Amino acid sequence: MTDASRHVVIVGGGFGGLYAAKRLGHAPVRVTLIDRRNFHLFQPLLYQVATGGLSPANIAAPLRAVLKRQKNTEVFLGEVVDIDAANRRVILSDGSVLYDNLIVATGSGHHYFGHPEWEELAPSLKTVEDATRIRHRILFAFEAAERETNPQERSAWLTFVVVGAGPTGVELAGTLGELAHHTLRDNFQHINPANARILLVEGTDRVLPTYPPKLSARASRALARLGVTVRTGTMVSAIAPDQVVLRSGDQMEQIRARTVLWAAGVQASRLGRVLTDRTGAALDRAGRVVVQPDLTVPGHPEIFAIGDLASFTHQTGQPLPGVAPVAMQQGRYVADLIVSRLEGRTRAPFRYKDRGAMATIGRSAAVVDLGWFRFSGFFAWLVWLFVHLMYLIAFGNRILVLIQWAINYFTRNRSARLITGESPWPPRH
Amino acid sequence: MTDASRHVVIVGGGFGGLYAAKRLGHAPVRVTLIDRRNFHLFQPLLYQVATGGLSPANIAAPLRAVLKRQKNTEVFLGEVVDIDAANRRVILSDGSVLYDNLIVATGSGHHYFGHPEWEELAPSLKTVEDATRIRHRILFAFEAAERETNPQERSAWLTFVVVGAGPTGVELAGTLGELAHHTLRDNFQHINPANARILLVEGTDRVLPTYPPKLSARASRALARLGVTVRTGTMVSAIAPDQVVLRSGDQMEQIRARTVLWAAGVQASRLGRVLTDRTGAALDRAGRVVVQPDLTVPGHPEIFAIGDLASFTHQTGQPLPGVAPVAMQQGRYVADLIVSRLEGRTRAPFRYKDRGAMATIGRSAAVVDLGWFRFSGFFAWLVWLFVHLMYLIAFGNRILVLIQWAINYFTRNRSARLITGESPWPPRH
Repeated sequence: MTDASRHVVIVGGGFGGLYAAKRLGHAPVRVTLIDRRNFHLFQPLLYQVATGGLSPANIAAPLRAVLKRQKNTEVFLGEVVDIDAANRRVILSDGSVLYDNLIVATGSGHHYFGHPEWEELAPSLKTVEDATRIRHRILFAFEAAERETNPQERSAWLTFVVVGAGPTGVELAGTLGELAHHTLRDNFQHINPANARILLVEGTDRVLPTYPPKLSARASRALARLGVTVRTGTMVSAIAPDQVVLRSGDQMEQIRARTVLWAAGVQASRLGRVLTDRTGAALDRAGRVVVQPDLTVPGHPEIFAIGDLASFTHQTGQPLPGVAPVAMQQGRYVADLIVSRLEGRTRAPFRYKDRGAMATIGRSAAVVDLGWFRFSGFFAWLVWLFVHLMYLIAFGNRILVLIQWAINYFTRNRSARLITGESPWPPRH
Repeated sequence: MTDASRHVVIVGGGFGGLYAAKRLGHAPVRVTLIDRRNFHLFQPLLYQVATGGLSPANIAAPLRAVLKRQKNTEVFLGEVVDIDAANRRVILSDGSVLYDNLIVATGSGHHYFGHPEWEELAPSLKTVEDATRIRHRILFAFEAAERETNPQERSAWLTFVVVGAGPTGVELAGTLGELAHHTLRDNFQHINPANARILLVEGTDRVLPTYPPKLSARASRALARLGVTVRTGTMVSAIAPDQVVLRSGDQMEQIRARTVLWAAGVQASRLGRVLTDRTGAALDRAGRVVVQPDLTVPGHPEIFAIGDLASFTHQTGQPLPGVAPVAMQQGRYVADLIVSRLEGRTRAPFRYKDRGAMATIGRSAAVVDLGWFRFSGFFAWLVWLFVHLMYLIAFGNRILVLIQWAINYFTRNRSARLITGESPWPPRH
């Protein structure tokens, strides 16, 4: 083990950080992975937790369990608040850690376009807590509608607005449609859940705007079949506990809705700004750190930013999207680069190998864009299913999710429909 | 459908209430099941959620899904705050419901022997939120020990005290031993989880005091093998955030411990007192309503109290224990009695058919007391496993729990080891 005193510190156990750590498992370095949480979360399936199809633990893997066979790797539960680049030190809320190489992979959160007060009213989906909170809101709305006798109030409880028609918004709206039309059928005496109104609001001219137009059109049709009304070219201009105001061009429309879910703007995590303050690197508009072709921060060949935190434009002129495959490939690239340097070798700049994109729309429909081949429908859904299962980190989770999906598919039930958290009744919102 | 206007209101969707509702599914009555939560919880396995072996949804079943095929049954999400026995009306926090027959089955909570301030310091296990909170505390203690450099502080983080050696306490302590010795092995760099000290404190002279002494002795040996220290004849006299004071006879002992879990005193839920205030029925020392031989409240043949809420002494002179089989049998009895009366028939008093009791101690050990046959060890554990699987309400949960158990057994992992909830780091307690 040459140079095993060489210390790589990774901040963040998402796709970028975890794949970097795994790739360094046999490298002649010491690795410390720091995260606030004790688990890796498979965020692409988080919307299924929010809609009662899966449990949080199904899509999470304890970091210590994932990395326990890597003798050179330590998992450290803590919150990084600052980076002392001059002294090669990350500052935690309760201590500090020295590094030789630093990989910052703290991801992104949601952005409310200058309306931070909307966060409380229109929750977004990033953490396990977000997912159980949204699950609470959605299921609770049907319960409240069942109890409500005033028809106008009842219809406000049965109106769901999803803001943003990227993959998360489309998947949330589609699953809401599934829930209303199938899962909750015959569950109530005073309401028909199928009467729920589900609006998917998108600022651009089509759903899944980063996908080819043909797949957007197919996704739109699949959403319509699930009872989802798509409103393109529409922005949210106000949100209150019981209503939302939409604007399309000069038209304003007030909609009575008790449940608004946010799947729009993304903003890199706070450490992006910290990193630029400490190193002089540039930030892009989404708060991401503009990185060099080798994913380092300018002037600091020992500091890397990867995944959703990084703005990488060298290949296409456009920043790479904030999706799991980018983060995974960047994590592996950086790990290999660190090892190459130790061995005195150089390495070509990072190149993203785009294997495509996919999104599901409710039960047994999906769109898949492989670049050279685009398809949708049931086969696309099977591909989506297979790919997502394969990338789940823990072996046990793969089996459990597969079986849970099979049960959900055949029974049309979703057994993780629990209203949990403080004060299930009466409503607080 | 004769007399379908006859309205049976059931308060509480635990074992008693749910089994009554199911039994009334084809009876010529209208049924309303009221619960604060939207799901039935299989409490006997809650300790496995608290120790990261299962997810909450694995042991919960949405009440609406369970009862959706019963056309005469309505599920009502709400909190009952009072009972207007004179007008046959239950009062909710936001409304009221009239009844012809009322079944009160609101169960029990924990009791801190005149020290309500201990609740915050030594959480008990009754709800899904309790379980995730305890899971947080347990997992967090190991994380904090890993980060702690002061040996005394570290040992306080690695000391766990479980108060009360009934089935829940024994199962919690045993699973803690399992976690420390097996699940977390090789997960840490600075601590050895197997050095954790697990104390099981019991006021009487043996663990599982309601079981035959021979099984208590076997349970004690199984606990010792898992590294659990049993302290019988010992009471807790003080609890602070970082210590607990134990008293055995005249001996006082101060123990530095960061994690104290409460599995001692049980107290019937608040509706027990409401019911006695409104009907003049007697309360026993544990806050349970003393019921007639047919489980009615004296003077009110239309009001029944069942399960943990009821004190039924007519068979043995001793109140029946607060366990699931009692509640299930009472729920079914009351349902049958209501139908018999509608048909003009009478019914013999309730008789509890005791089919035995069982408890597990960690992986692959259990004690089973069938009355006529007592056994322990691996075969007992298989019986325990089978019985618990069979009583899980939802079919999907049976499959998922079986597979999760198989994975946990063979990998010795517990994948639901998530530290969730507010402020995972730094500690608040």
